[in-house]
Amino acid sequence: MIWWPFSLSSLSALTHTEKSSAGRLDGKMREKTLTMDTLNPQVKAVEYAVRGPIVLKAGEIERYLEEGGTKPFSEVIKANIGDAHAMGQQPITFLRQVVALCTFPELMDSPSFPEDAKWRARRILQGCGGHSLGSYSASPGVECIRKDIAAYIEQRDEGVPSDWENIYLTTGASDGIMTILRLLVSGKDSSRTGVMIPIPQYPLYSAAISEMDAVQVNYYLDEDNCWALDINELHRAYQAAKQHCQPRVICIINPGNPTGQVQSKKCIEEVLHFAYEENLFVMSDEVYQDNVYAPDCQFHSFKKVLYEMGPEYFSSVELVSFHSTSKGYTGECGFRGGYMEVINMDPEVKAQLVKLLSVRLCPPLAGQAAMDVIVNPPQPEEHTFKQFHQEKSSVLGALAEKAKLTEQILNSVPGIKCNPVQGSMYAFPRIFIPPKAVEEAKALGMQPDMLYCLRLLEETGICVVPGSGFGQKDRTYHFRMTILPSIEKLNVLLGKVRDFHISFLKEYSGLEWDEI
Amino acid sequence: MIWWPFSLSSLSALTHTEKSSAGRLDGKMREKTLTMDTLNPQVKAVEYAVRGPIVLKAGEIERYLEEGGTKPFSEVIKANIGDAHAMGQQPITFLRQVVALCTFPELMDSPSFPEDAKWRARRILQGCGGHSLGSYSASPGVECIRKDIAAYIEQRDEGVPSDWENIYLTTGASDGIMTILRLLVSGKDSSRTGVMIPIPQYPLYSAAISEMDAVQVNYYLDEDNCWALDINELHRAYQAAKQHCQPRVICIINPGNPTGQVQSKKCIEEVLHFAYEENLFVMSDEVYQDNVYAPDCQFHSFKKVLYEMGPEYFSSVELVSFHSTSKGYTGECGFRGGYMEVINMDPEVKAQLVKLLSVRLCPPLAGQAAMDVIVNPPQPEEHTFKQFHQEKSSVLGALAEKAKLTEQILNSVPGIKCNPVQGSMYAFPRIFIPPKAVEEAKALGMQPDMLYCLRLLEETGICVVPGSGFGQKDRTYHFRMTILPSIEKLNVLLGKVRDFHISFLKEYSGLEWDEI
Repeated sequence: MIWWPFSLSSLSALTHTEKSSAGRLDGKMREKTLTMDTLNPQVKAVEYAVRGPIVLKAGEIERYLEEGGTKPFSEVIKANIGDAHAMGQQPITFLRQVVALCTFPELMDSPSFPEDAKWRARRILQGCGGHSLGSYSASPGVECIRKDIAAYIEQRDEGVPSDWENIYLTTGASDGIMTILRLLVSGKDSSRTGVMIPIPQYPLYSAAISEMDAVQVNYYLDEDNCWALDINELHRAYQAAKQHCQPRVICIINPGNPTGQVQSKKCIEEVLHFAYEENLFVMSDEVYQDNVYAPDCQFHSFKKVLYEMGPEYFSSVELVSFHSTSKGYTGECGFRGGYMEVINMDPEVKAQLVKLLSVRLCPPLAGQAAMDVIVNPPQPEEHTFKQFHQEKSSVLGALAEKAKLTEQILNSVPGIKCNPVQGSMYAFPRIFIPPKAVEEAKALGMQPDMLYCLRLLEETGICVVPGSGFGQKDRTYHFRMTILPSIEKLNVLLGKVRDFHISFLKEYSGLEWDEI
Repeated sequence: MIWWPFSLSSLSALTHTEKSSAGRLDGKMREKTLTMDTLNPQVKAVEYAVRGPIVLKAGEIERYLEEGGTKPFSEVIKANIGDAHAMGQQPITFLRQVVALCTFPELMDSPSFPEDAKWRARRILQGCGGHSLGSYSASPGVECIRKDIAAYIEQRDEGVPSDWENIYLTTGASDGIMTILRLLVSGKDSSRTGVMIPIPQYPLYSAAISEMDAVQVNYYLDEDNCWALDINELHRAYQAAKQHCQPRVICIINPGNPTGQVQSKKCIEEVLHFAYEENLFVMSDEVYQDNVYAPDCQFHSFKKVLYEMGPEYFSSVELVSFHSTSKGYTGECGFRGGYMEVINMDPEVKAQLVKLLSVRLCPPLAGQAAMDVIVNPPQPEEHTFKQFHQEKSSVLGALAEKAKLTEQILNSVPGIKCNPVQGSMYAFPRIFIPPKAVEEAKALGMQPDMLYCLRLLEETGICVVPGSGFGQKDRTYHFRMTILPSIEKLNVLLGKVRDFHISFLKEYSGLEWDEI
């Protein structure tokens, strides 16, 4: 059965106006310098599913619809990426006011901007060269913003000390993660650096590992146990990896992406003890720290747990925690703001980190300003508190509702099983794909869940990412979808997923509805 | 003679509160995972003088002065980096208006913002997901901004066609340069990628080459000929490099950084012919394209020259040109905006480029918006044109004046010789350092011009960067200074440099003033 409506090659984003070689003055063909044969093989190895072929295809369909083409749907819904504003979430007014004031300080005279925003903007600009957002900051970021972040962390962690000189602003969390990995990855052959990552993972990690030619060491999260991290699995993965590389880093994503779980304090303790014992550097991706919805879950920072384990741990385990403006209740992805806190790093290495950061000069100043508002939001005694608090609660309340709704509807579909979305912005349901569909996918040279997701996109306009892009246990299939669309849209979307899934099962199982 | 007022180790930016190892529960010492021994050696090899030890020292002195310490000067003048706003340059009003409107669209209702700015902001927001600067853009950038850039390039190059799908927004030019090098650098041993760079160079290039473990292939600019690029020197460098690596890329900085020269059309033709013949990929750093001051000089884009060389060249030579919001007349460094135009890249490789960009999601949206204003400024028929034009002319006029002033005063000092500052933002004068000072520097384990610059900083508060950080011919010494301080401050600065230089010569030559 050939249902495939487009060739695989059409998935790549090419302009075909260019020739790969051209006539030479002396009659010989001039070869291109940079071809697939000469391209850096580490770049070739990189995969990044969140913006991969399925998203390119979604863009094609969007353009087709715009140009008057017809499909069984009127719009593409991009549930592939945690891009809150693109899904209609409104910016937090106060954050935008502060950044606008920093951008155009003439607005300081405008009575329509609140004083609370003005003093924050003035303070940020005081910290900028020439009092301008247009100057470079120090490479680790604007000093007063670093101090605000340290104060925020101390408050979040109920008094655990935070040194502002350990804080580095970044261009989104991705940039920070890449930078720290760059320090850590070295060695050849069996001394190559092993980087332990959860499976499923956010594919920035696997992409960075490929790009840097490190060894990806998978530890599998326990789907049957709400995607919990199992310490025995960490030991297994570590011991197996030691045979062929040197595992030096463990990456944790908490709350989980794409898995949506929130780790328990006990689990974090176990991870930190393990890292302590095995001399592992800990990278803790905590960008969803404000996105916890399940009433029985709570965010515990790795740093605070480390502190509570006692000075032997707190003074020795090397830990970097990452945060971002892109998630939480602000969803300011386009600002590319973020920070990392670096604990127990060797002082000489820290100087090397500063040097490496300085080559890229500094993170964007608007993103730094946005980060400052997140860590230094309006306080109850400020006039702007009420509106700020309302907006924040409204976003987080809606996300909690959507997390629940997503889990419930998905679990009502035969052949779909979805763990609770305890936190972050994603559901990662397991889907049953009939053997016939698996075979067809293999014949087409693609993963079965890629086939599933491409058909979902073609038939419903819904764009989600195949589980294979994040990693999953063999012979299990998933997709990642965001819970970001509005409640109304999410209801429609989930209904369409249900209908699609049932008809997919019918088509490939040869079963009727009442048999499913 | 021990004049050295601080130890070299105090130059590093360390907090000394952390121990490099800590007591372990079982009594053994727990070693750190990441130490100078285990650090990625390619990171260790990176050097970046523009923000190197001299700048850390300048920061120390600034803090010392702030805390009430005394020095023979009252402030540190940072002429080490092209950071216009930090030196007091005012932002272009129109650019900031557009970015502020994009940031806080409620301002669309404000009568104090011009319609010309509002329609640009509306158009940019139309191109953003959810009409918000807070959403991710497509990884190559917002489509309408890419189109504006292509239109700008066509106009700049008098009709040479530009395809918007060849335009990629970047996080400053540095990010683009790193990304393209990442594609190109591969191979081991004698097939390692050789990257030809000018000497003196902007140290981003050498830093990137170190980080990526490529081979730096130096071609020397001709100081005696106004830092012109000599084609014979290119051939020499290429042939020599072929013995031990595979030269695949040539980087050109025009107008020059740190050298301030503007390349002639003939010279560009020669470079392109050479690249054509030797199958080299061309990276053309044109971030100073708006910074040309010498009346007899003109900016010629590599792309336009390539076009004029005929279709054999224009359809085959792989060329990437870089631009930025940080330089020109806007000086918006903190926005981290920029773009690259990619010509003749193999379509499959281009898809790989898009994939690589997508891992970092997208460049900051405020920087993209700033870039849009630069390529789509007010037109004569618009109300905002007059003010915009005045502000632009005022910045560029002052820069031209300062370029001339810098050259003149420096050349009035015995033992300093400065080529004309034809463009960019820097002077790179050659300085005579007496043999005794050279010996002293060697005894201290530092470059002679580092010693010179550190003493200049200690004695006058002026922070410039030693020529050794950019590369220079053996036994020649230079420093790079920006021409960005205000005319008044620049006059003072240059006077102090003169006095310092003379007393330095006297001290180390044992000569009196009238003998110099």
